[in-house]
Amino acid sequence: MLILMNLNSPREDIKEVKNKIISFNCTPHEIPGASKLAIGITGPSEFLIKEEFQLLPSVEEVIRVTKKYKLVSRQMKSEDTIIDVNGIKIGGDQLTIIAGPCSVESRDQIFEIAGRLKEMGVNFLRGGAYKPRSSPYAFQGLKEKGLEYLSDVKKEIGINIVTEVLNQSHIEAVAEVADIIQLGARNMQNYALLEEVGKTQKPILLKRGMSATIEELLLSAEYIVSQQNYNVILCERGIRTFETATRNTLDLNAVPVIKKNSHLPIFVDPSHGIGIWDKVPAMAMAAVAAGSDGLLIEVHTNPEKALSDGYQTLNLASFKALIEKLQELAPVINKKLNLGNYE
Amino acid sequence: MLILMNLNSPREDIKEVKNKIISFNCTPHEIPGASKLAIGITGPSEFLIKEEFQLLPSVEEVIRVTKKYKLVSRQMKSEDTIIDVNGIKIGGDQLTIIAGPCSVESRDQIFEIAGRLKEMGVNFLRGGAYKPRSSPYAFQGLKEKGLEYLSDVKKEIGINIVTEVLNQSHIEAVAEVADIIQLGARNMQNYALLEEVGKTQKPILLKRGMSATIEELLLSAEYIVSQQNYNVILCERGIRTFETATRNTLDLNAVPVIKKNSHLPIFVDPSHGIGIWDKVPAMAMAAVAAGSDGLLIEVHTNPEKALSDGYQTLNLASFKALIEKLQELAPVINKKLNLGNYE
Amino acid sequence: MLILMNLNSPREDIKEVKNKIISFNCTPHEIPGASKLAIGITGPSEFLIKEEFQLLPSVEEVIRVTKKYKLVSRQMKSEDTIIDVNGIKIGGDQLTIIAGPCSVESRDQIFEIAGRLKEMGVNFLRGGAYKPRSSPYAFQGLKEKGLEYLSDVKKEIGINIVTEVLNQSHIEAVAEVADIIQLGARNMQNYALLEEVGKTQKPILLKRGMSATIEELLLSAEYIVSQQNYNVILCERGIRTFETATRNTLDLNAVPVIKKNSHLPIFVDPSHGIGIWDKVPAMAMAAVAAGSDGLLIEVHTNPEKALSDGYQTLNLASFKALIEKLQELAPVINKKLNLGNYE
Amino acid sequence: MLILMNLNSPREDIKEVKNKIISFNCTPHEIPGASKLAIGITGPSEFLIKEEFQLLPSVEEVIRVTKKYKLVSRQMKSEDTIIDVNGIKIGGDQLTIIAGPCSVESRDQIFEIAGRLKEMGVNFLRGGAYKPRSSPYAFQGLKEKGLEYLSDVKKEIGINIVTEVLNQSHIEAVAEVADIIQLGARNMQNYALLEEVGKTQKPILLKRGMSATIEELLLSAEYIVSQQNYNVILCERGIRTFETATRNTLDLNAVPVIKKNSHLPIFVDPSHGIGIWDKVPAMAMAAVAAGSDGLLIEVHTNPEKALSDGYQTLNLASFKALIEKLQELAPVINKKLNLGNYE
Repeated sequence: MLILMNLNSPREDIKEVKNKIISFNCTPHEIPGASKLAIGITGPSEFLIKEEFQLLPSVEEVIRVTKKYKLVSRQMKSEDTIIDVNGIKIGGDQLTIIAGPCSVESRDQIFEIAGRLKEMGVNFLRGGAYKPRSSPYAFQGLKEKGLEYLSDVKKEIGINIVTEVLNQSHIEAVAEVADIIQLGARNMQNYALLEEVGKTQKPILLKRGMSATIEELLLSAEYIVSQQNYNVILCERGIRTFETATRNTLDLNAVPVIKKNSHLPIFVDPSHGIGIWDKVPAMAMAAVAAGSDGLLIEVHTNPEKALSDGYQTLNLASFKALIEKLQELAPVINKKLNLGNYE
Repeated sequence: MLILMNLNSPREDIKEVKNKIISFNCTPHEIPGASKLAIGITGPSEFLIKEEFQLLPSVEEVIRVTKKYKLVSRQMKSEDTIIDVNGIKIGGDQLTIIAGPCSVESRDQIFEIAGRLKEMGVNFLRGGAYKPRSSPYAFQGLKEKGLEYLSDVKKEIGINIVTEVLNQSHIEAVAEVADIIQLGARNMQNYALLEEVGKTQKPILLKRGMSATIEELLLSAEYIVSQQNYNVILCERGIRTFETATRNTLDLNAVPVIKKNSHLPIFVDPSHGIGIWDKVPAMAMAAVAAGSDGLLIEVHTNPEKALSDGYQTLNLASFKALIEKLQELAPVINKKLNLGNYE
Repeated sequence: MLILMNLNSPREDIKEVKNKIISFNCTPHEIPGASKLAIGITGPSEFLIKEEFQLLPSVEEVIRVTKKYKLVSRQMKSEDTIIDVNGIKIGGDQLTIIAGPCSVESRDQIFEIAGRLKEMGVNFLRGGAYKPRSSPYAFQGLKEKGLEYLSDVKKEIGINIVTEVLNQSHIEAVAEVADIIQLGARNMQNYALLEEVGKTQKPILLKRGMSATIEELLLSAEYIVSQQNYNVILCERGIRTFETATRNTLDLNAVPVIKKNSHLPIFVDPSHGIGIWDKVPAMAMAAVAAGSDGLLIEVHTNPEKALSDGYQTLNLASFKALIEKLQELAPVINKKLNLGNYE
Repeated sequence: MLILMNLNSPREDIKEVKNKIISFNCTPHEIPGASKLAIGITGPSEFLIKEEFQLLPSVEEVIRVTKKYKLVSRQMKSEDTIIDVNGIKIGGDQLTIIAGPCSVESRDQIFEIAGRLKEMGVNFLRGGAYKPRSSPYAFQGLKEKGLEYLSDVKKEIGINIVTEVLNQSHIEAVAEVADIIQLGARNMQNYALLEEVGKTQKPILLKRGMSATIEELLLSAEYIVSQQNYNVILCERGIRTFETATRNTLDLNAVPVIKKNSHLPIFVDPSHGIGIWDKVPAMAMAAVAAGSDGLLIEVHTNPEKALSDGYQTLNLASFKALIEKLQELAPVINKKLNLGNYE
């Protein structure tokens, strides 16, 4: 259930609504909005009596939320969520690019690529310090050393860092370096980790699990948001199907479905999605045309030598060509390509 | 294997090459091309001796084709296939729109929608006379009556007809009315039907089966082309996955994969693909951005009253809005929206 | 809707019920049953008035059928359908084995394997004369010659023939040789073919499509049964999933689901299902334990030399070992292994 | 790579082999076996020189392991792994039943069901204290209280406890109560958790992820085993496919595939697998016929009132009937139903 109140409601009216919610053993959530003040309610909502709320002062409307997910739904909040990362806006009419290598491989490697991306106006550098790998014998990332290099790159080059956390006990260390914390596909239903990152209040990039439905993705986002962390970016990255010509099946259908049902920004990762570098630009363009708020693109100065995922990684020239096409595409979709305005 | 010859090769040289192929118990296929004359070879090619061909007059190059599909592969023919339908070009830099209702429902219905689409410059009307339905008790189309209406619409309104054939014994009747014969997803591996439509020499729109791999789609196209019918348009229309939020999972990844591996045009049907009308425009835009050569869109003057598939069908206003966005998008992808140039 | 009548109802009462059904523009179907006479109704049943039937003489009960499929549902007929093939019963407490090579390869090959299977008491020989192949260049079967060999084997060795039809124009020729006509997975939704085989009144083995739901399989069976051909055997043969360790994912869950919802016998083809010969016996045992009424097993005297599907084919020794285990398993599941009682 | 040594090799010979391995920057793993002493090697094995090991004293054979997974593969250890849980053997010729409710709901509930199961000879009680739920608003289990009840049940009734861990910070508390720690499908690729449970040396029941390939399941087991914890039981519990008639698609094909490729025991959970209680017994029988070493069955004294998963839960009468059928089936598969021998 959702209580819509006048934006200028006096604090005591808001408090009265919250107390009433608590008296039903439910939890009130004040939801940031531009035109209305909304109080979301989670908990055993079947016992709530709608009429008791409609009579309270400053209450304008009481709405039942019919979806399983509540706080992340459009029913709760009709406006797009805009996330501010160090002054850069994500969501709304902004089209954001996160680029970089799969893994941090060395100090030199990450500085070189970060420098080149920064020159092209890219505001967000991706790069894994901790890598989730199917095999315990595969390269697992540089770990603490990788975080250290990312921290140095951030300070010296001035670029925002997007990096993944795999382990509850690393959250603090990762949160110190990351401007956006990535939660990978394999951990989409790792509820302990979801709750912990929810507590950090850092922006979270939540990737869809390989066989997660769109509803499950939104419910996982709900785990984070119910910790009062509204800064969640969803990310489609390909699902598992019978098709073997592509690494995964990038499911762009998720973009308009999520746009309709949630106020959170939705990004697309075509690199993992299709998994073949020369087809990444086509899927990146398609993602944006479908309404995506941003892209996650694997870029490396030397993809053939990448320690992981080289096959799906663009080199700088291909990435540049893609950026130029996106510049042309963005206005057709009423978006602004969010480049170069970071200082 | 593929023999490339000089475009101006004398007929006797071509004949010599073909005879040599036949002497190996294989079949020669003269493949239309702009820059080279190519002779494709199918059959028990493991016994072919490359050197025996390289020495023949006018032969420039002999290439092994490594894919399972041969005649439809880019290795056989590097240029895009352009299909001419009554003077309208499909493929290459053309972006073609096929629109119309799921089923022909009545004379009035099909005349009304055809008239409105023609006004908007649409050159191809889709509409099923025979409908493949999971249940024997569902509406199966108007059948012969439906074909008759389509034939009348074609003559009186002047619009090309795209309609499906389900049954070998209807091929002749359908081919008489259709400018493009559609082969539906359920029949993608109905090899008897593939071979029969191959013999008609009519352009064929071949839809991907619900669980067909991209390779299998190309192999099914090969069945048609090996009957010397090169006028095949492939069509992605959604595959079956675990996701239930959408009717199917429109697999746009197929577009760049097919563009790389085949010279045939590839269309996309976002109506069946995502299956929810208000999300069709987003997927139509995405399909074009991914490189699709055309779209198949379900449009009805009154979708709520459609006898089939109303839920995924655009009304005229939504369709018009989509066309306008496509006009903006086409030049970004170096395509020309192929509208209104049909007389 | 379903009308249950007394088994000894006079013909004129039955006729009155049928005429009443026809007066509603629906079609009556007399359904064979042991304890009751049932009249199924298909057509625009929403207009039927239940009370008008309840008042007719000899009518005992009127039941709404809630499933999309009608005639094949357990609601229509609660007893198992038993199919009689030249005196051999299929369904009920019988466990039937259909065995043989993927393809008829030569006169000698099919006579040798048929002889050996007959010695082991196998009553049904499978073998394809027409083979559906993804590639037009793969071995397509011996065609008419294959049918001829099967016809000879049948006469000389005395074994029932199960063989596939792919093409409407071959139905007559196939029906002349086959005791059970197989309809393959790729043609499960080839409705023209379903209707045509329905008209033959021959027993039909209908294989589940690679991505067909169980409901769709039952609806395809309904196409056949609505042609008054009740002799339909369903067959699970593996579905398409993301798993690549097995050729398909044999979906044994289909067995208890179908047993609950339909009166038709359900067979399992573990050879195509798992697709690796040394794992076929385990899945055959599992299929029977799950409640399957029969098995379709690929057996060859020399699997390594088979022209198709050798990798999933048992040799005679492995097949014999499996039969011996099935002999032990059958009584645990209250089935009788239907071997050797054919003369 | 794998070094096979004589069982009676002197310690110094073993040490020499291990030191040689370490000198190549790899890790030696002494693998328990009955007929040979085996030393597995993990790490950058591409640099190992086979000949250098073949010359060492007591070394009998040096084998390259070709699978991605090493320590869990049959190549490393050809005999079945037998796991001893408080004197009860799991694996080999034993057929083990783990039964109980989805969740611990109350002290009374868990005592009642445990008592009834114990009477039937069941040695292992399942019951979740921590429940992974898609929605943050669904019942998440009784948590610490649930563990406390399980601990009491264990002491008072004398039954082994199988319960799930979701959170790294709960491992210690769960390990204190659990005789077998369950790792759920959603956490199959939670590598941090895999490594932590590996360190406990407790038997681990590792469930296959909803879209995990069999290879990925074995690689996740490898994460645990590479922590020197060989007591891993694999568990098939259904995968995600397009089929909606069943909750999941129980993939019994995994049983013979895993038996061939790994020495670890493989269990099956038909309750989650098919997800409909009245079809659970058929799939349980099928699982055992396919070669499963054990079953995980949801049983509740009152399934309709279960707080979670009631729809897929057997009542005591149905469970008893299943046990009786399993008693008949076990000897057919050369297994012994492992009941009642626990004191």
